[in-house]
Amino acid sequence: MKWDNQLINHLQWSNAIINREGKEIVAREIAAMAEEGDVIGAGSGSTVYLTLFALAERIRKESLHIEVIPASAEISMTCIQLGIPQTTLWNKRPDWAFDGADEVDPERSLIKGRGGAMFKEKLLIKSSGKNFIIIDDTKLVDHLGSRFPIPVEVFPSALTFVESEMRRLGASEITLRLADGKDGPVLTENGNFILDTRFSYIDPSLEENLKMITGVIESGLFIGYDVEIVVAK
Amino acid sequence: MKWDNQLINHLQWSNAIINREGKEIVAREIAAMAEEGDVIGAGSGSTVYLTLFALAERIRKESLHIEVIPASAEISMTCIQLGIPQTTLWNKRPDWAFDGADEVDPERSLIKGRGGAMFKEKLLIKSSGKNFIIIDDTKLVDHLGSRFPIPVEVFPSALTFVESEMRRLGASEITLRLADGKDGPVLTENGNFILDTRFSYIDPSLEENLKMITGVIESGLFIGYDVEIVVAK
Repeated sequence: MKWDNQLINHLQWSNAIINREGKEIVAREIAAMAEEGDVIGAGSGSTVYLTLFALAERIRKESLHIEVIPASAEISMTCIQLGIPQTTLWNKRPDWAFDGADEVDPERSLIKGRGGAMFKEKLLIKSSGKNFIIIDDTKLVDHLGSRFPIPVEVFPSALTFVESEMRRLGASEITLRLADGKDGPVLTENGNFILDTRFSYIDPSLEENLKMITGVIESGLFIGYDVEIVVAK
Repeated sequence: MKWDNQLINHLQWSNAIINREGKEIVAREIAAMAEEGDVIGAGSGSTVYLTLFALAERIRKESLHIEVIPASAEISMTCIQLGIPQTTLWNKRPDWAFDGADEVDPERSLIKGRGGAMFKEKLLIKSSGKNFIIIDDTKLVDHLGSRFPIPVEVFPSALTFVESEMRRLGASEITLRLADGKDGPVLTENGNFILDTRFSYIDPSLEENLKMITGVIESGLFIGYDVEIVVAK
């Protein structure tokens, strides 16, 4: 299929991956942890791709039986292209999962969702026995929200209501994420909108307060999750 | 269009509406409250239909300018068939709204969602200045859950995770709502599944605890909302 080559060209031979060498080292370390029979959750981000490449190589060379649960259609397509067997959260739970992040604070809380897949990523992290968050050191921040807004996935019909509720929670800036050019608002794989939202202060209860709003599916805030941070040098 | 007549036949000339006379009296009372320029939210249920018929008559006879925000495609189609102008939650908030319920307890807490539209119904009730819940006295219960399960709208991919989280919250029975015949699981207008769920005890925090589960859109529990209950005799 055409998207096979589109994706693989986009990633494997592009120079778009920042700090590629450091990330490849970490990717191989993560892939080395896979054991025969493992079910592995895969989030998104450049290091996730590189780890899948390393994992595919081990599966091929060592005839390992491993299944991946992907967090997005893009990662699912990548698995198909690389010949990595997939399974679903309907019948399996990941033994462990790996993912990227946009920001990581000293308490290992995260902002994710620049790729728009934070709902499924959060579902994977909550379903998984152990989680690795792979980043380079540009993602380390003193305070969440220093650089990135918090992405919030929202039912289209609830857009105005959610916006007003978020202002009540202290949002200082709310932007509907738009596709480039003529494609209108970005739609998630679930058919929803993304509001990129800035708060002057991110309270530990903000993740829960956002989720409680009728019309909010999930936010890209991950506060206090049990994750291991792996930093690519 | 064909669905025009399908719907109107289904409702206006059917004997399917229980206690029709009593409901028509209430429907006329509710419709009588509409004032020139009102924006009115309309939920679902037989009395909502009867109220829309009464409202359409007033609009026609008195040349009123009224707009309705419907909670479902079915109600939207009914408005089109009856010539009632519609608007959306994107640009308007309802001055008041009316809806049905499956169960109402002495504290005016509700179970809704037998029709599967509880997400948009909750959004309407939360957006509206004032809310009327129209029922007949068969809907009055001492304890929520006496007769009906709690419907919970769930992202398909999160089905298994949500089920296990609901068991942790004490669910004793969880059923995936299926369409009649060969049509598989019921899909909501948002493309999601419905889990009909029984709890031996419904704690006041259950609505919040259900909403907090990743993969849950909304439940049919409405605990402690500021609603006025109107009982058809």
